[in-house]
Amino acid sequence: MAIPAYLTQHQNRFLEELIDWLRIPSVSADPKFHGDVLRAADFIKDKLQAAGATLVEICPTAGNPIVYGEYMAGPDRPTVLVYGHYDVQPADPYELWTSPPFEPVIKDEKIYARGACDDKGQVYMHVKALEMMLRDGGLGAPCNIKFMFEGEEEIGSDNLGLFVKANKEKLQADVILISDTGILANDVPSIEVGLRGLSYHEVEVTGPNRDLHSGLYGGAVMNPINALCDMISSLHDENRHVTIPGFYDNVAELSTAERAELAQAPFSEAEFEQSIGLPAATGEAGYTTPERTSIRPTLDVNGIWGGYTGEGAKTVIASKAYAKISMRLVPHQTSDEITALFQKHFESIAPAGITVKVTPHHGGEPIVTPTDSVAYRAAARALETTFGKKPVPTRGGGSIPIVAMFKSELGLDSVLLGFGLDSDAIHSPNEHFGVFNFLKGIETIPEFYREYAAASK
Amino acid sequence: MAIPAYLTQHQNRFLEELIDWLRIPSVSADPKFHGDVLRAADFIKDKLQAAGATLVEICPTAGNPIVYGEYMAGPDRPTVLVYGHYDVQPADPYELWTSPPFEPVIKDEKIYARGACDDKGQVYMHVKALEMMLRDGGLGAPCNIKFMFEGEEEIGSDNLGLFVKANKEKLQADVILISDTGILANDVPSIEVGLRGLSYHEVEVTGPNRDLHSGLYGGAVMNPINALCDMISSLHDENRHVTIPGFYDNVAELSTAERAELAQAPFSEAEFEQSIGLPAATGEAGYTTPERTSIRPTLDVNGIWGGYTGEGAKTVIASKAYAKISMRLVPHQTSDEITALFQKHFESIAPAGITVKVTPHHGGEPIVTPTDSVAYRAAARALETTFGKKPVPTRGGGSIPIVAMFKSELGLDSVLLGFGLDSDAIHSPNEHFGVFNFLKGIETIPEFYREYAAASK
Repeated sequence: MAIPAYLTQHQNRFLEELIDWLRIPSVSADPKFHGDVLRAADFIKDKLQAAGATLVEICPTAGNPIVYGEYMAGPDRPTVLVYGHYDVQPADPYELWTSPPFEPVIKDEKIYARGACDDKGQVYMHVKALEMMLRDGGLGAPCNIKFMFEGEEEIGSDNLGLFVKANKEKLQADVILISDTGILANDVPSIEVGLRGLSYHEVEVTGPNRDLHSGLYGGAVMNPINALCDMISSLHDENRHVTIPGFYDNVAELSTAERAELAQAPFSEAEFEQSIGLPAATGEAGYTTPERTSIRPTLDVNGIWGGYTGEGAKTVIASKAYAKISMRLVPHQTSDEITALFQKHFESIAPAGITVKVTPHHGGEPIVTPTDSVAYRAAARALETTFGKKPVPTRGGGSIPIVAMFKSELGLDSVLLGFGLDSDAIHSPNEHFGVFNFLKGIETIPEFYREYAAASK
Repeated sequence: MAIPAYLTQHQNRFLEELIDWLRIPSVSADPKFHGDVLRAADFIKDKLQAAGATLVEICPTAGNPIVYGEYMAGPDRPTVLVYGHYDVQPADPYELWTSPPFEPVIKDEKIYARGACDDKGQVYMHVKALEMMLRDGGLGAPCNIKFMFEGEEEIGSDNLGLFVKANKEKLQADVILISDTGILANDVPSIEVGLRGLSYHEVEVTGPNRDLHSGLYGGAVMNPINALCDMISSLHDENRHVTIPGFYDNVAELSTAERAELAQAPFSEAEFEQSIGLPAATGEAGYTTPERTSIRPTLDVNGIWGGYTGEGAKTVIASKAYAKISMRLVPHQTSDEITALFQKHFESIAPAGITVKVTPHHGGEPIVTPTDSVAYRAAARALETTFGKKPVPTRGGGSIPIVAMFKSELGLDSVLLGFGLDSDAIHSPNEHFGVFNFLKGIETIPEFYREYAAASK
């Protein structure tokens, strides 16, 4: 299908607007950016309004506000609730960015900035798709559309659940549409139908009541850093299985047929290794790389610190050491179950002389979305129209905890119509989003509404 | 023996002068304190001069300068070379200090400040002891005394060796006197006759070529932090023996008789545990706590860092992780030997997908000093005079690498006439030095010269 003239005409302005938004460092994990988080919310509220949404409002929560807006096409039309988030991951380590994370630039047809892909760039596709549908002389939107953009996705969406509980009426819809995932490649459209859950913890181990001289005390006290390393090391066995008792009890083992079907998705081990500069992908014995990152649960240390980390040498035995440890979950593990198992196990493996404090950060549930729903088929057809290719269903390794929450609170399935790429380096230095992907999203979203409205008649 | 009237009369001034010196943050490990390091050198140079030393000079080196001065009593007198250091350990974590590390205060008869005991307080005892001997109406010093105070002891004394090599003539002496150690208790005088050596390394492990999203990649790549923990954990076995091949090959095993003699030194396991707030002292199987901290080599992680260590949660797999790892050595290990073994072994245990860089920081040799020398006996008698008790010979766990260097370069033994206490928290927050210990040092040092001159006749 030909790219709409309006999109071609206005694409530069669309990009400039997105870049203005990306300039606002809406980092939710760090309180010092709180003012910017609020500015980012105001920005998108104004743009929603300008695009033609009604009832646009900033809804306060105990944390960061939720931006809500809607466009009502008519009582006879199906209703789509669009979810996205305007907060971003912390940008450090800053020194590894080739251009500053909050001074967006377009290089080789890619927008470089923190949040370019995750998720401000993908949220902005929806705002511009609305503008395109409602412009003078446009056909209008064939569906009722409700927009809900939150500011706490990167820190666990703690207040979204309460907001949803309290606004079930207002949020009534037929399906949820989310663009916070990716496609396999720009010539291999795909739709994520599965996501992993999350259990995230901060651990603190304490040994002696103060930092000690490693010469005077070394050898006679359990060093908290050594102890923490022992404890972390013991969480995997030689096959990279997680050793927490009960960890795999509820893991859904896929049938050979299901594994074979997933193996259909094009994947190059060599390209994967080359893209991250590793001689060899390694992981849990008995599974392929795509399986290890989708249908299998994992445990990773996301951060560790303790003792002297400055310049030069300090011969000290630290009193405390810390780590941030997270687990990715798959059906039918639950974050509450795994959080409890981890806490109990990690406390139980502390050696003599070491006390442990485990602080669970936040969790999310794994999900699998249906591929036989009206909405999934509409999304598939929309992608086929704009990419000229049938999309492949894939299972992703990331987590969008709120998908399970929407199912339980609103009884709604979600369609994950994302346009990012694995190589976009989200959560990493030099995050970027392809200009092609941004524009292709704006082009595809109205097609989804058209297909969905038609199929819902 | 009665405390000299001069000491009683002037002790407040002595304390005030020391406090002025402690105000200068002469941290050698951190370049931003370089100017203060130089100021600390100037300060002690002036005080040496004022006390009556001649030829006082600041000797430049490739690093921090060495302060030299001397007092010549006569060609017929024995010559003592006094060594000490005016640089101090970094003071962080600052927040754990009850009073700022460089705003010295006297609380419960103790001077609280970084360097109060290690080593500025002990160096200053020597300067005031000289003043006391040379004051109007004083008896003068019975020995020729040479003073050599360096500013790089806490970072490995890299330039002291070159200085000594280049100034063997000037530094000619009969014995070296060092006050950089401690006594067992204020009512249990002791002299250290053994010190452990040191091999200190910074390690860097690298996995993927950039930070990765732990959801998209978790499970398929070796996480550098997990790998570092595995590697560190593997450095000890279940008996807390170090697993580096060849690590114990040259360790001098003490005879039952020697171990029994060392066990004579009064030691309370309960007090030790209580003083550091641990339920139980733990360490290498088959050895007592005093043995683990003196006659046995150890391996400790002094610092570790990697990944996201800020507030909140970041789901990242870091590209790199780091640690500072040091080993305490005992006769007849050498730091070169152990440094090579560590480097080779640590590189060899890197798992697939992980590259390792080991950067040796600095080392020092373990030593045992004779207890049958004229100088040792003179020190023992001096302590007996001022404490009213025979001192106990002990073997310490710390390292004064230059003692071995003095032996090899100048052919001189050292006497470790230190006045600190284990509880002084050197290298830790709230380092302090007892006023009693400071004054007792000033009182004892002239006694040592008297005894040594008499015995050398």
